[in-house]
Amino acid sequence: MTPFPFAAIVGQDEMKTAMILTAVDPSIGGVLVFGDRGTGKSTAVRALSGLLPPLKMVAGCPVNSADPADVPDWARGAGTAVEARPTPVIDLPLGATEDRVTGALDIEAALARGETAFEPGLLARANRGYLYIDEINLLEDHIVDLLLDVAQSGENVVEREGLSIRHPARFVLVGSGNPEEGELRPQLLDRFGLSVEVASPSDIEERIEVVKRRDAFDRDPDGFVGDWGDAQADLRDRIVAARGRLAGTGAGDDVLRDCAALCIALGADGLRGELTLLRAARALAAFDGARAPGRDQLRRVAAMALRHRLRRDPLDEAGTTARVARAVEEVLA
Amino acid sequence: MTPFPFAAIVGQDEMKTAMILTAVDPSIGGVLVFGDRGTGKSTAVRALSGLLPPLKMVAGCPVNSADPADVPDWARGAGTAVEARPTPVIDLPLGATEDRVTGALDIEAALARGETAFEPGLLARANRGYLYIDEINLLEDHIVDLLLDVAQSGENVVEREGLSIRHPARFVLVGSGNPEEGELRPQLLDRFGLSVEVASPSDIEERIEVVKRRDAFDRDPDGFVGDWGDAQADLRDRIVAARGRLAGTGAGDDVLRDCAALCIALGADGLRGELTLLRAARALAAFDGARAPGRDQLRRVAAMALRHRLRRDPLDEAGTTARVARAVEEVLA
Amino acid sequence: MTPFPFAAIVGQDEMKTAMILTAVDPSIGGVLVFGDRGTGKSTAVRALSGLLPPLKMVAGCPVNSADPADVPDWARGAGTAVEARPTPVIDLPLGATEDRVTGALDIEAALARGETAFEPGLLARANRGYLYIDEINLLEDHIVDLLLDVAQSGENVVEREGLSIRHPARFVLVGSGNPEEGELRPQLLDRFGLSVEVASPSDIEERIEVVKRRDAFDRDPDGFVGDWGDAQADLRDRIVAARGRLAGTGAGDDVLRDCAALCIALGADGLRGELTLLRAARALAAFDGARAPGRDQLRRVAAMALRHRLRRDPLDEAGTTARVARAVEEVLA
Amino acid sequence: MTPFPFAAIVGQDEMKTAMILTAVDPSIGGVLVFGDRGTGKSTAVRALSGLLPPLKMVAGCPVNSADPADVPDWARGAGTAVEARPTPVIDLPLGATEDRVTGALDIEAALARGETAFEPGLLARANRGYLYIDEINLLEDHIVDLLLDVAQSGENVVEREGLSIRHPARFVLVGSGNPEEGELRPQLLDRFGLSVEVASPSDIEERIEVVKRRDAFDRDPDGFVGDWGDAQADLRDRIVAARGRLAGTGAGDDVLRDCAALCIALGADGLRGELTLLRAARALAAFDGARAPGRDQLRRVAAMALRHRLRRDPLDEAGTTARVARAVEEVLA
Amino acid sequence: MTPFPFAAIVGQDEMKTAMILTAVDPSIGGVLVFGDRGTGKSTAVRALSGLLPPLKMVAGCPVNSADPADVPDWARGAGTAVEARPTPVIDLPLGATEDRVTGALDIEAALARGETAFEPGLLARANRGYLYIDEINLLEDHIVDLLLDVAQSGENVVEREGLSIRHPARFVLVGSGNPEEGELRPQLLDRFGLSVEVASPSDIEERIEVVKRRDAFDRDPDGFVGDWGDAQADLRDRIVAARGRLAGTGAGDDVLRDCAALCIALGADGLRGELTLLRAARALAAFDGARAPGRDQLRRVAAMALRHRLRRDPLDEAGTTARVARAVEEVLA
Amino acid sequence: MTPFPFAAIVGQDEMKTAMILTAVDPSIGGVLVFGDRGTGKSTAVRALSGLLPPLKMVAGCPVNSADPADVPDWARGAGTAVEARPTPVIDLPLGATEDRVTGALDIEAALARGETAFEPGLLARANRGYLYIDEINLLEDHIVDLLLDVAQSGENVVEREGLSIRHPARFVLVGSGNPEEGELRPQLLDRFGLSVEVASPSDIEERIEVVKRRDAFDRDPDGFVGDWGDAQADLRDRIVAARGRLAGTGAGDDVLRDCAALCIALGADGLRGELTLLRAARALAAFDGARAPGRDQLRRVAAMALRHRLRRDPLDEAGTTARVARAVEEVLA
Repeated sequence: MTPFPFAAIVGQDEMKTAMILTAVDPSIGGVLVFGDRGTGKSTAVRALSGLLPPLKMVAGCPVNSADPADVPDWARGAGTAVEARPTPVIDLPLGATEDRVTGALDIEAALARGETAFEPGLLARANRGYLYIDEINLLEDHIVDLLLDVAQSGENVVEREGLSIRHPARFVLVGSGNPEEGELRPQLLDRFGLSVEVASPSDIEERIEVVKRRDAFDRDPDGFVGDWGDAQADLRDRIVAARGRLAGTGAGDDVLRDCAALCIALGADGLRGELTLLRAARALAAFDGARAPGRDQLRRVAAMALRHRLRRDPLDEAGTTARVARAVEEVLA
Repeated sequence: MTPFPFAAIVGQDEMKTAMILTAVDPSIGGVLVFGDRGTGKSTAVRALSGLLPPLKMVAGCPVNSADPADVPDWARGAGTAVEARPTPVIDLPLGATEDRVTGALDIEAALARGETAFEPGLLARANRGYLYIDEINLLEDHIVDLLLDVAQSGENVVEREGLSIRHPARFVLVGSGNPEEGELRPQLLDRFGLSVEVASPSDIEERIEVVKRRDAFDRDPDGFVGDWGDAQADLRDRIVAARGRLAGTGAGDDVLRDCAALCIALGADGLRGELTLLRAARALAAFDGARAPGRDQLRRVAAMALRHRLRRDPLDEAGTTARVARAVEEVLA
Repeated sequence: MTPFPFAAIVGQDEMKTAMILTAVDPSIGGVLVFGDRGTGKSTAVRALSGLLPPLKMVAGCPVNSADPADVPDWARGAGTAVEARPTPVIDLPLGATEDRVTGALDIEAALARGETAFEPGLLARANRGYLYIDEINLLEDHIVDLLLDVAQSGENVVEREGLSIRHPARFVLVGSGNPEEGELRPQLLDRFGLSVEVASPSDIEERIEVVKRRDAFDRDPDGFVGDWGDAQADLRDRIVAARGRLAGTGAGDDVLRDCAALCIALGADGLRGELTLLRAARALAAFDGARAPGRDQLRRVAAMALRHRLRRDPLDEAGTTARVARAVEEVLA
Repeated sequence: MTPFPFAAIVGQDEMKTAMILTAVDPSIGGVLVFGDRGTGKSTAVRALSGLLPPLKMVAGCPVNSADPADVPDWARGAGTAVEARPTPVIDLPLGATEDRVTGALDIEAALARGETAFEPGLLARANRGYLYIDEINLLEDHIVDLLLDVAQSGENVVEREGLSIRHPARFVLVGSGNPEEGELRPQLLDRFGLSVEVASPSDIEERIEVVKRRDAFDRDPDGFVGDWGDAQADLRDRIVAARGRLAGTGAGDDVLRDCAALCIALGADGLRGELTLLRAARALAAFDGARAPGRDQLRRVAAMALRHRLRRDPLDEAGTTARVARAVEEVLA
Repeated sequence: MTPFPFAAIVGQDEMKTAMILTAVDPSIGGVLVFGDRGTGKSTAVRALSGLLPPLKMVAGCPVNSADPADVPDWARGAGTAVEARPTPVIDLPLGATEDRVTGALDIEAALARGETAFEPGLLARANRGYLYIDEINLLEDHIVDLLLDVAQSGENVVEREGLSIRHPARFVLVGSGNPEEGELRPQLLDRFGLSVEVASPSDIEERIEVVKRRDAFDRDPDGFVGDWGDAQADLRDRIVAARGRLAGTGAGDDVLRDCAALCIALGADGLRGELTLLRAARALAAFDGARAPGRDQLRRVAAMALRHRLRRDPLDEAGTTARVARAVEEVLA
Repeated sequence: MTPFPFAAIVGQDEMKTAMILTAVDPSIGGVLVFGDRGTGKSTAVRALSGLLPPLKMVAGCPVNSADPADVPDWARGAGTAVEARPTPVIDLPLGATEDRVTGALDIEAALARGETAFEPGLLARANRGYLYIDEINLLEDHIVDLLLDVAQSGENVVEREGLSIRHPARFVLVGSGNPEEGELRPQLLDRFGLSVEVASPSDIEERIEVVKRRDAFDRDPDGFVGDWGDAQADLRDRIVAARGRLAGTGAGDDVLRDCAALCIALGADGLRGELTLLRAARALAAFDGARAPGRDQLRRVAAMALRHRLRRDPLDEAGTTARVARAVEEVLA
């Protein structure tokens, strides 16, 4: 199905920013999207494949390799032709087995025919792109854990009875969920880079606009996508430019001190928060065209980098977003 | 078994309207039927196969293809003859396994004989028709989820160990259940297009009429069906006409604003409610022969499009139907 | 084992009437027998095979076909000889698997030898007779559901991996249970036609008579059965006569109005109660030799047709039997 | 292991009587032994094989047939020689699978080699003897149910995928348990013929005697058994004589009335109590050498025939044994 | 690993006595060791293999047979050479399957090759020695039951699908556990012969001695074992002598009366307590070189023979050890 | 991935000391690391492979043998070349099966081809190194138990159906976990040698330093490792020297008495605490270059050797670390 144009999404700025930051610097890590149903979470993630620049891939390569030399041994169907394909955005359905996620080694075939018989899984298909899990809070923790491990190491290793297969699996994990229907362990929350909150718009004109665009898209997808082509191209160009600038974007001691001060003020456990804050601010600076991240960038990414790392504070009734905002105001005043 | 004539169903107007709307525009989505046992839910759904115009289908095609060119590769028994058959209304029994629902890929046969061995499931048989689940609230959530996914995408994809089969699976999902005996997650409720409530008639003459017709049908099905032939034909013709008019039925900003205002007034989560309200009103307008939906149509479909999307409001003791009616009165006054 | 003669059962009139009504008109549906242990529930059901007239059956036919032409393809052992055999009364033990109930398709054999390998189950053996489940309240709901589905449709369909077998399975389902030890879902209760209550006799002479007859039967089964031969024959003849009269037994609007009024007065959910009441009264009229059912028949079957369809009424401490009796008194006064 | 001599068991008269009655008339049904651990329950049951007269059995016959003509087809190892062997007393361990209990049909062998491949189970080995289950209250209910069914019908039927094996399985089921550690369903309790209560002796001389005999037996089993040979023979002769007299032992209306009156006074559900009371009294009369059972026999067996059939009476704090004794005193005064 | 010398164990006299008594008379039955972690329970059990005199065993015999004539048929690797080996002390790990415990019959091999294919389990390896289970309270009850059955009968019988293997399995079962972390059913407790309680020493010099000996052993096992060689030999000689004297050690009525009086005073259920008390006292008498057990021996073994057989007494707050001591004082005053 | 340099870890002195002590004397046993997420637990463990001196290993040997003569029979791929490789630090993922941990015996292959077919597991790969389990409190107890058994015995024994494989498996088990998210049984806690607590630094400059170093490492791993090369080498040399000195480091009665007094003061169950305290102090003395451990070393290792062995004391609100500190102050004053 043709995806809805990312640029045509009405509102939802925080979610869009988070997606753009991970497109600029995938090492920021996964994104959690919290919010009610029907607020366009899936639409936004799937729209990334229409927004991001196409990737060069070897035709038939199960891990989306850019170069025929990188096609794994076990990928028998791949040729040497290289073609441009959209950035993969792969859905991981709730009922997926571990075999389907990681791929499956066929031991019997290996022993009988002396060849490596590996059926790649969803992790292979997500390489160089996004892996999306709706209602991630209903997924078993050990699968979430496995996904985070692979996303971080960039490599999927499947071992069974002494046989071992590895292939690159570099992707951004995006999980959405309604926190009222089940929660992730804090241990897992902390391993996501960013989190964003989405809600239905309360403004009536904005709602009409959302429905009107969606209805127009549903009735004539191709026409609608054509209308938004320029806006998509502009946004795509800015992302590509930011990627190029990222390596040259530094970070001074001032910004490091601000990161630490914010985390201490918030009592955020561990140091992942500080590192993520730094990286997200740096990616935003690159997107903004700035030389280095400053307090402006910190302010804009603080909530998404930190809100899911706060301990519950029974004496503080404010939500985590408000607590981050308050800390930003005090520390970065 | 010969189905009971749809036109001979006594009362139950909301349920009949919902069935007709999905017959006019299947993209409205699934229908949930809430209510006590013995109120004719199953009878109404099964009656659709006798009401709707027969479909052209390739004889022996497991996915009910209209054209021999569309018969899938793996369908070995299908010929090229085309015949007219009733719209399929398929029952999904509670104990059905996922394999039976989606169909099963026989990996061993595929490897041994080099052919794609796929045994189609209930989703294949429901293509171009209806899939009915009695007591859907007792079905496992992940199966409901899967059914809604397929119904929305119109395609059934079965993957196992790297093999992959896809076939069209466009159907309207109809689920019935007594909410006192178990509930669906709100996440799932929201993905159904319409919901209706049914109850036993309280009027004694109406009850006598129901029993009399049922007893007459049970004792002489063919005679009874013959008696109702004209009424069935009239209704069928109106549905066919409405289908033809649907593409030309517009929707102005006024009706969009009314949709949004209703949803905001009701606090309905997400924007699926607004879209469904719009589509159901548009289908009803087409059935009514109107150029575009107006407040009249909105009033008649508001409850079925929205009642299952309301949050529980502990301070408002009115049922969801009454809350929708109140909002309709205020907003569309 | 030789069954105990039905005619020699002491007391338990309601249970005996229900058995006779289903023998006259099996479309009334299943029978639930509630009551303490040791009250002769099993004895009564098994006695039906000695009471009812023998059926003509093809020797060796696994579904008890009356005509060699009706023997299913897969029934390899059946010949063409027709013989008279007792009406089957089949026990369904609590631990029975679904395969044992429905029969099992041997897919491997089918693929390997190109023949349909079907091992019929208990449903096949019960065709044209009775299927009895002691302690049905301890059976899994989905099996009860399946049994009711088959009993209603009169056909058993077994599907597995695209293969499909069907055979007639027309039987009356009789389930017994002590409601103190587990309950059926209301949804299932409603699908049984009749329910009866049994209890140990409180009259000492009646008890002595029960024990004396049982002891005599246990010590000399053949002699005892011989002594009761005439009584059995008389009852059998009345049932056969009633079967013949049934098609000609009408039902006027008065009796329909009485049925509806009774159900409304009792708040019985749905319309199955009314239909069953009508049918049971009609079967009783045929057994009585009456032209059409009247209030006399309604009074005698009201409790067995309706008591299991009442909602619990926390404000009404009377049992369901008493509530039906009260309603009968008011409505049919 | 050589069993301890039955005649050397100190005290425990009720248990010994129950064992003797089932030896005289096995149709009385199973025996439940309630009581603390270490009170000699297992010892008493196993002692039966040393007490009862040896049975003639075909050598190697898995179902202990008396006559070579009765050896089942599937029993390949059996010859034609007949030998005398002790009455079997078979232990059914708690973890036994249903296959091990009933025997297992090897379908694959049957299909491949065209022969009936049946591995008999514990029910086969118990034929013509006793089946003993320690801690029966910890066994799954459906296994207990199955055992009671087979014990009552005297036949074990094993069916699998259309194949069917049957063999005689006439045995007395003896179950022991401590009611404090789990209970049987009342439904199952009622299907046992007799129940007895055992306890450690409170008299010190009796205890010394028990330990002294046990220690003597453990240190020199053969010598001890020799010392008790005459006492064993006397008891064995009385049992054999009672068996011969049983068929000629009648039962008048007086005793039937007493049975009924006792059961009504006790509110014992169902009529199994009365039948068992009658049979146990009759067997005791035969053992006593009386022509017919009278009040004396009724008094001695009333508790063991009825105590496990009483409902709990929250207003009556007396135990079931005391309640039976009270009723005996009132009714048989 | 070289075991720690039994004679070098500091303190823990009750545990050491119990081990010695079972070495003198294994028919006393299993031993339960209750107590905190780190108190040397495992060390003491494993030390038995270094303490007890080596056994003659056929080399390669899986059941440790003393004589080549006793090697089972299925033991293919055994020769005829006889060698001296330490008394086996086998660990049964918590996760062990029943197959691993009892050994496994390979039915397929048996049928295919006509030979008995039995893979012996831990029970075979423990024959003539000790079977040790740490944290026995965490083992499933049915495995404990099975172990006690085998230990008592001295024979392991493995049956599967009609095949049957038996081999001697005479061993003392030693289980340790912390009662705070889970309990055995009273039914199982009662089947253990002895129970002992261990605790960390509270005396500082004793603790230093324990640590010093352990550290010395860990740093130089061989040297340490050498240092304690004489003490080990002395103890070993006394055990061997006691074994020889056991058959000649009688027990008069006085000691029997004392046993009964003690058990009655304690309300110990059943008579196993009395028998065990008698046997343990007799073994201790043999170890002491006395002609017959007297009150001195009874006093020293009363707690270990009886404490695990007491019912909980909610009115008596004293622990079981104190209750036994009090009863000993009163009864044997 | 290149590990982060151990020497560059900021703060976390207790954790670093514990790692160093186990590198000096692996017989101290496993290490538990308690603390919040994001505090560098995983980083520190994995850093050991970059810190410790490379080991000589036979190329391709699955158990990291130092000498070709020690390569197991079943290791078919190993040659005779010896190469230097980093000390293995193996991750045990939470979902790992027992087969994957211990390795798997392929019985079928063994029987069919007469060869020992063993697929080594994680225990083989960890030989001579470290086995690391993040969130060990979420691992099943019986796996933890198994790991501790193997770590203590230094040998992995895999037995299945009578076949048996053993290979050396000497490693230090390191488990990390947040005690708030699940606990180990005390029985298991006690079997770990040391435990340490880690927390995020509260000093802002320290936090900046941590983030700065981590960011520098992530952006240029090789450059960063180069910068820390000298510091790593110094630390490595001290560990190697300490290993050489260990055998000559004694322990007098004074230090033994101090160990015992500390444990008694703390009420630590069992004697493992004392032994570990002694060994850790001795290893620290060797690292310090001292002749024998004294009160200084005891003070520095007391908390890590004892805190996980304390019983909960409901009357003492201080944490275990504080309780150890208080005892150290009192006893070693």
